[in-house]
Amino acid sequence: MFSWFDGRAKRVEIIPRLTTRGERPSTTKVDIKDLTPELLPFLGQSAYFELGVFESLARAVLIAPNLAAKQALSTAAGRALSKHQGLVAEIRRRGAEPADVMAPFVPALDAFRAEITGADWTELLLSCYLAGGLLDDFFIRLSDGLPGEVGPRVAHLLGEDAGAAILATQLAAAIAADAPLASHLALWGRRLVGDTLLIARSALAFAGTTDQAGVVTVAGPAEERIEPVFTELIAAHTRRMDGLGLTA
Amino acid sequence: MFSWFDGRAKRVEIIPRLTTRGERPSTTKVDIKDLTPELLPFLGQSAYFELGVFESLARAVLIAPNLAAKQALSTAAGRALSKHQGLVAEIRRRGAEPADVMAPFVPALDAFRAEITGADWTELLLSCYLAGGLLDDFFIRLSDGLPGEVGPRVAHLLGEDAGAAILATQLAAAIAADAPLASHLALWGRRLVGDTLLIARSALAFAGTTDQAGVVTVAGPAEERIEPVFTELIAAHTRRMDGLGLTA
Repeated sequence: MFSWFDGRAKRVEIIPRLTTRGERPSTTKVDIKDLTPELLPFLGQSAYFELGVFESLARAVLIAPNLAAKQALSTAAGRALSKHQGLVAEIRRRGAEPADVMAPFVPALDAFRAEITGADWTELLLSCYLAGGLLDDFFIRLSDGLPGEVGPRVAHLLGEDAGAAILATQLAAAIAADAPLASHLALWGRRLVGDTLLIARSALAFAGTTDQAGVVTVAGPAEERIEPVFTELIAAHTRRMDGLGLTA
Repeated sequence: MFSWFDGRAKRVEIIPRLTTRGERPSTTKVDIKDLTPELLPFLGQSAYFELGVFESLARAVLIAPNLAAKQALSTAAGRALSKHQGLVAEIRRRGAEPADVMAPFVPALDAFRAEITGADWTELLLSCYLAGGLLDDFFIRLSDGLPGEVGPRVAHLLGEDAGAAILATQLAAAIAADAPLASHLALWGRRLVGDTLLIARSALAFAGTTDQAGVVTVAGPAEERIEPVFTELIAAHTRRMDGLGLTA
């Protein structure tokens, strides 16, 4: 259990006090434009994240339990790859070398991916579904603060179908065939969300301090503006869990 | 060492008597239309082959030694996936279920892929480059015999850039950085070609018999027509090996 915001700000316990299930968050859009990082770091982090989603889905293809699942998941892997390629094209358009721009984000994102790879195919799929969904949403929100026309272009790219329906279908079938799997995957999903939100938080253009217990303290007014964004992200996460019949 | 054709037909030793290096084969096109299998089996085998190339390249992405290689190879993996998806679309267009149509080819192609996976990244890359190149060429030749407009459409799809230049660049860099690798990979390439040609042969719409030593005997005039096609495939293979400075 940890919190994102501490000190004078309200303490938000991400786990386990998510949101009330089924309740849609307020539609008032919080302005977090000034928390968007510089363009190239934004592109580098999101591009490397999508490459990681591709790699995770490719691994899911390799270990798929049957040919129909393998075939369907290859489509989802292709969607993640398209997002990566679109972001890489934006990097190249600015005369930068994609590998150089992505490099600073490799250690944290590789560690994250190792954390969420899971012990088997269903854990891996759930990770791709939940982390992919949450971070696509998050990067789309952040893209509001990008300069010029690149923001809408990136939002469009990241908003394209990520094959989420394919992943949800495969997961639902696996859960239907093995009832005890639901409580196991519910635990896994609750574990995932903390690591995933830490990645989201690391993308923000302000520095907080993290103590040894993982409690992030942010001074100033930024945390008050970002908090509703995280609430939205968690609400969407809860809806994904609910859709699979998993208790978030 | 084995031969494709035996008995009354001329014995063609595929290994090691390939072709004279650098010599282009005759441009006279051999007509093998009546050796093309039925449409759905053709699509099933080629679609599952391309899915396998995608999986092999995805594995190469996962174990790539650096980020630039990982990024470049993901593009090549995407090309193989596009070919698979295009072939799957042709299967669906005919109201068939892709997994059902691919299923008969799973055992042989999985065994083939296990054979050519190799012990490390460079062996895996060379397998993708050589087997992918040879079998794309072969399926394009076979597509001549498909009915209606599907033949040209499939030929166009399989003829699209498979990312071969990306693979060749990565392999050339690995060889340049490690001189003894060339003779090791030359051996691996010579080993690969036999298994790859067996897969090609299995796609043909005639039955031969294979004895315990792997000698395939085909009765009748078919072998005389198909022989020049294999000679062309081997010549192209030799040019790929030559391009990397590997002795075929």
